[in-house]
Amino acid sequence: MPLATPYYLIDETALARNLERVDTLRAASGAKCLLALKCFATWSTFPQIAPHMDGTTSSSLNELKLGREKFGGETHAYSVAWSDGEIDEAIANADKIIFNSVNQVDRFGERAAHLPVGLRVNPGVSHSHFDLADPARKFSRLGESDRAKVEAAMDRVSGFMLHCNCENDSVEAFSTLLDQIEDKIGDLLLRLEWVSLGGGIHFTKDGYDIDGLAARLKAFAEKFGVQVYLEPGDTVVTDTTTLEVSVLDIIENEMSVAIVDSAVEAHMLDLLVYRESGAVAPNKGPHRYQIAGKSCLAGDVFGTFDFPDPLAVGDRISLLNAGGYTMVKKNWFNGVAMPAIAIRRKNGAVEVVQSFDYADYVASLS
Amino acid sequence: MPLATPYYLIDETALARNLERVDTLRAASGAKCLLALKCFATWSTFPQIAPHMDGTTSSSLNELKLGREKFGGETHAYSVAWSDGEIDEAIANADKIIFNSVNQVDRFGERAAHLPVGLRVNPGVSHSHFDLADPARKFSRLGESDRAKVEAAMDRVSGFMLHCNCENDSVEAFSTLLDQIEDKIGDLLLRLEWVSLGGGIHFTKDGYDIDGLAARLKAFAEKFGVQVYLEPGDTVVTDTTTLEVSVLDIIENEMSVAIVDSAVEAHMLDLLVYRESGAVAPNKGPHRYQIAGKSCLAGDVFGTFDFPDPLAVGDRISLLNAGGYTMVKKNWFNGVAMPAIAIRRKNGAVEVVQSFDYADYVASLS
Repeated sequence: MPLATPYYLIDETALARNLERVDTLRAASGAKCLLALKCFATWSTFPQIAPHMDGTTSSSLNELKLGREKFGGETHAYSVAWSDGEIDEAIANADKIIFNSVNQVDRFGERAAHLPVGLRVNPGVSHSHFDLADPARKFSRLGESDRAKVEAAMDRVSGFMLHCNCENDSVEAFSTLLDQIEDKIGDLLLRLEWVSLGGGIHFTKDGYDIDGLAARLKAFAEKFGVQVYLEPGDTVVTDTTTLEVSVLDIIENEMSVAIVDSAVEAHMLDLLVYRESGAVAPNKGPHRYQIAGKSCLAGDVFGTFDFPDPLAVGDRISLLNAGGYTMVKKNWFNGVAMPAIAIRRKNGAVEVVQSFDYADYVASLS
Repeated sequence: MPLATPYYLIDETALARNLERVDTLRAASGAKCLLALKCFATWSTFPQIAPHMDGTTSSSLNELKLGREKFGGETHAYSVAWSDGEIDEAIANADKIIFNSVNQVDRFGERAAHLPVGLRVNPGVSHSHFDLADPARKFSRLGESDRAKVEAAMDRVSGFMLHCNCENDSVEAFSTLLDQIEDKIGDLLLRLEWVSLGGGIHFTKDGYDIDGLAARLKAFAEKFGVQVYLEPGDTVVTDTTTLEVSVLDIIENEMSVAIVDSAVEAHMLDLLVYRESGAVAPNKGPHRYQIAGKSCLAGDVFGTFDFPDPLAVGDRISLLNAGGYTMVKKNWFNGVAMPAIAIRRKNGAVEVVQSFDYADYVASLS
């Protein structure tokens, strides 16, 4: 009997393909790659991922502890702002700690002096298709923007974090951005031991010029005498995971709408936040449907897709690319049944690693 | 010692004010009011709310069971689509069951024949400021749009659900919409025993003409010989709840940005989805700050507000109107610490009714 929908399905074979590309990049560039847990933190997969990466990076104490406990390797602690109440626990779990502002270095740097201390710097340039996700947007709080303050803190930090890319799938665009950064703060980079260039570089995409990226990273590392880190998230899990759903009803209202047992806002939130469409394969055929969720939201729409045959109640649909920024932000909106999490092993067996029920829904409130 | 932030704080006295207005409307109109759990389902408050309402309505099996178990009264079961696997449990927990389409009546109506059966109808008119939330938007799947199909099902249903309002704070606008509905389907309404007019009517707002609304509802009930139901959610909890946060850092980047220990996407998601600003009071004074969250999202901004004094690290801020559509969709994005849920009792005592920790974060994944 097939698993009951909805569930996220992570494919080990697809993940292995991406991890091989991560290894290629690491070997050719000398850069260390840390998994960005903000994007993907489904820790049942860590035994497969960890041998191909150097550790994790985090955006909160919870992620930091998860990385330390479940992934191993080098554990980078970053947060947009640490609180007084959590800083000691953060330091205790970190191999490096990265502060988002010189204020935070001033506040907490001494307590962390036994660790390599980093500073996130906002160089004022970025590659992003979305203002919402643009770290160099006006009034950005992501990284220190005040060069004078950065200079005054240089003796207290050994590295920078420069996270300026979002969904960048072009080596040329990445390289041009790095040129700009070198022009702006190259003199400071020369004084560092390490630089994290963040995530948002989609180097596992088919056809991506990994050798070109590796050469550019290696040149950067040699020019400034630094160890380069990357913090990939989405590119590690892209095209590895589907959201498996079933058709519950088909409505006709000027077009055919198939309602499935999921909800965009609850299970693939970024489609709603960024007003994007999901995807199915092959998305070809004479039968067009809007695929909609079962929440109360009028705009709960996964997308409009073409199918080879008419859909019927009970049919299953695989919504593609449901690995990054999905499970980490799933929620109980409308009380819609929470998807289980399953892994398709390399031998084809599908194993459920987590499931949720009514008691979990009740406990999410009070 | 004050409670550690972040936490949602529900104020019993403010809730009592809204509930008194619910009672006024019920008494003057004869309409029954069911709490819409999709908006607010923090069940620790149900003992206070339940005496002032007639029951609950739901948008999923989980909400249905929560209403039955924790609220009592009349329990309406509605879902955009019921599945074969859940329909029997839904029927077992329902006092009325409302189907979203005639297809679903065809599929499940007979099994529910011992209950009053309703049908959601889309009359093609609505009041909504947002296309995302407009139940009459193009290709809407919310309710049966095919009049011929509705007519053919009339002998199998005793009531309609007509949910056409979203954030409607005008009796005139509501009444005009009801006029249009009467014109379109009045002949069908005459054949019913009950009609739910849904939620989205902000009748607890200061200055709202509750008597005017009551008269309009009563006239509707008398004209068609039906029991009217309303399904208020947000209007029950508006201005009852704050999200209490603390300032962690203050950044200067062309303006002053105060970073707090929360995140819009994780704790007040609708601000992000609808691109709206949060609110503080009194929002007056010479010191202007952008209040931003601590997630990695560049657009994690609660709003730009004015304060009487300069902010400093450790200062607390109350973000207003954090009751409706917040706790029901909170999530672990970025692993940001999940707000506890607290209630300020009528005697002023603040009681924590739920809190979340690292173990909950870990268990949310696998």
